[in-house]
Amino acid sequence: MTVKTPVSVLGLGFMGTALAETLLKHGHDVTVWNRTPAKAEPLAAKGATVAATATDAVAASLLVIVCLSVYADAEDILTGDVLAGRTIVQLTSGTPRQARAMSERVTGHGGRYVDGGIMAVPPMIGGPDALILYSGDEAAFDEYRDVLGLLARPDFVGGDPSMAPLFDLALLDAMYGMLGGFFHAVALVRSEKVEAARFAPMVTAWLTAMMASFPEYARAVDTGEFGTDVSSVATSQIAFPGLLATSREQGVDPGLLVPMRELLDRAVAEGHGADGLARLITVLERPAS
Amino acid sequence: MTVKTPVSVLGLGFMGTALAETLLKHGHDVTVWNRTPAKAEPLAAKGATVAATATDAVAASLLVIVCLSVYADAEDILTGDVLAGRTIVQLTSGTPRQARAMSERVTGHGGRYVDGGIMAVPPMIGGPDALILYSGDEAAFDEYRDVLGLLARPDFVGGDPSMAPLFDLALLDAMYGMLGGFFHAVALVRSEKVEAARFAPMVTAWLTAMMASFPEYARAVDTGEFGTDVSSVATSQIAFPGLLATSREQGVDPGLLVPMRELLDRAVAEGHGADGLARLITVLERPAS
Ligand SMILES: NC(=O)c1ccc[n+]([C@@H]2O[C@H](COP(=O)([O-])OP(=O)(O)OC[C@H]3O[C@@H](n4cnc5c(N)ncnc54)[C@H](OP(=O)(O)O)[C@@H]3O)[C@@H](O)[C@H]2O)c1
Ligand SMILES: NC(=O)c1ccc[n+]([C@@H]2O[C@H](COP(=O)([O-])OP(=O)(O)OC[C@H]3O[C@@H](n4cnc5c(N)ncnc54)[C@H](OP(=O)(O)O)[C@@H]3O)[C@@H](O)[C@H]2O)c1
Repeated sequence: MTVKTPVSVLGLGFMGTALAETLLKHGHDVTVWNRTPAKAEPLAAKGATVAATATDAVAASLLVIVCLSVYADAEDILTGDVLAGRTIVQLTSGTPRQARAMSERVTGHGGRYVDGGIMAVPPMIGGPDALILYSGDEAAFDEYRDVLGLLARPDFVGGDPSMAPLFDLALLDAMYGMLGGFFHAVALVRSEKVEAARFAPMVTAWLTAMMASFPEYARAVDTGEFGTDVSSVATSQIAFPGLLATSREQGVDPGLLVPMRELLDRAVAEGHGADGLARLITVLERPAS
Repeated sequence: MTVKTPVSVLGLGFMGTALAETLLKHGHDVTVWNRTPAKAEPLAAKGATVAATATDAVAASLLVIVCLSVYADAEDILTGDVLAGRTIVQLTSGTPRQARAMSERVTGHGGRYVDGGIMAVPPMIGGPDALILYSGDEAAFDEYRDVLGLLARPDFVGGDPSMAPLFDLALLDAMYGMLGGFFHAVALVRSEKVEAARFAPMVTAWLTAMMASFPEYARAVDTGEFGTDVSSVATSQIAFPGLLATSREQGVDPGLLVPMRELLDRAVAEGHGADGLARLITVLERPAS
């Protein structure tokens, strides 16, 4: 029998609960803490030890996983000499700047710091499709790679602790863009009494086909060669008022689409009408004055 | 030897050219017309007949495909007794209202009207992944299904001519949402000198995983049961300021994301914080005052 790494999990929202449950299922000693104690009860029933305070929870294990709403929630918790010699894996979503600051705080108290970005929703944790991006202390990551690998496929993206949140945020941006488009599209077809369940598979097929252009967009922006024989900025810019007008005609708030129209207008005004859509990336890189 | 249906193609932009080329490749007699005549030359070299006027082009075939920038471009073209007995397949992107008006105009002149929404970029035309949605005169569609099927997989979505543009626009909304998210995400990682080509496959994998939730969102909005054990509106609303702040910190225009923040704020203000994200669909259906 191998001894399994004891782990503490601080924060038992949807995500922290999924993380703790997965570790329990694999036979780890798990100590949990949550600000609102009631959320610890189902985990206690599954074998978790419930710590009375956050400091007690940190003190219980050398590997400490933190998953709160925002980084600021962790400031009173991740402090003090109790951090010395422990590895803090911060899975709360935050910014690159916050990750650098948290890393300094933890290492300043003698701890090792690994930042992580969870690329999954809670039901995916422990399953084959979940991904967690890590960055920061690579030795600490390597030491705990196996236990972290129980939660999701672990991908170490760099020694700078800010890299995981950078990629995490970029992927979230992409997700919210896609979800906004999907929600708007569903609202539009529902305005003509079309069932969302009929329409959803069409969106999946369509977006999957459209994602095939991502490598070409990437090539264009990496090389600075924006010429296209596919679909120009001007083509989209001309078609866009129709999208907004239909949305309004159908009684659906067009708000989610408005900044894309502004971006297309700006790209055309700056003389990029004949370029491919990847040109919009460099327009975003020079914020509107 | 079977006689192949002669086809006229009006409008030789990126898309009209791809349509005409595909029909020529399959041995059809193709008559083409374009406002700017130079764009017809490469097609003439491949065997197309170039009509001197739009009316000549309409008169040349019983099946007439139109693909201009916007519906208004077709108003001077699709008129007169020359339409009588012909089938007009309007593949210009437009609104449901425009499709209904164009259908009345064409049928008023004794023509048959089929509206279409092209769910593909030009290089996909004639290939296995292209889809064109059709609605309107089903008998006319059925008569020409085989020749239309050379262009893309044809999907007849309803006798009301406005249905194809409705689905088309809804899918375009979804696409622009996804592209906006992708472009923003690429700009963000590029702010730390990460190559777009390294990042693009991560986005594809991540968005593909996230699309697995579409059926559940559809179920929620169809049934009105918005409860979630996955990820609530409040979770996203709390995390969102971090997305915008990072974007600004990294020098990337956060504008594309702002309406999603406003939508999340509105959903929380209206008491939907504990609901799943599909709740945002119904919030979009009641435009902000
Ligand atoms: N859910 C997802 O789909 C998902 C996906 C990827 C990443 N994430 C990230 O994972 C983190 C947690 O998400 P979640 O879904 O678990 O959120 P959640 O269900 O809203 O849970 C939030 C957790 O943070 C705690 N908390 C909030 N403010 C606190 C404070 N001031 N002091 C101490 N604890 C505090 C809450 O404690 P109480 O119970 O006392 O309120 C709760 O444990 C977030 O950063 C989120 O962005 C979530
Ligand atoms: N490209 C795509 O990826 C794509 C995908 C799906 C659907 N569509 C739709 O297909 C349609 C055509 O797109 P495209 O990519 O081919 O655009 P495009 O390359 O910009 O071509 C526009 C065409 O419209 C003609 N046109 C514009 N204004 C006109 C006017 N007032 N009178 C007569 N002709 C006029 C142009 O003629 P000139 O050559 O004289 O300017 C040209 O033939 C649009 O509705 C678009 O939304 C395009």
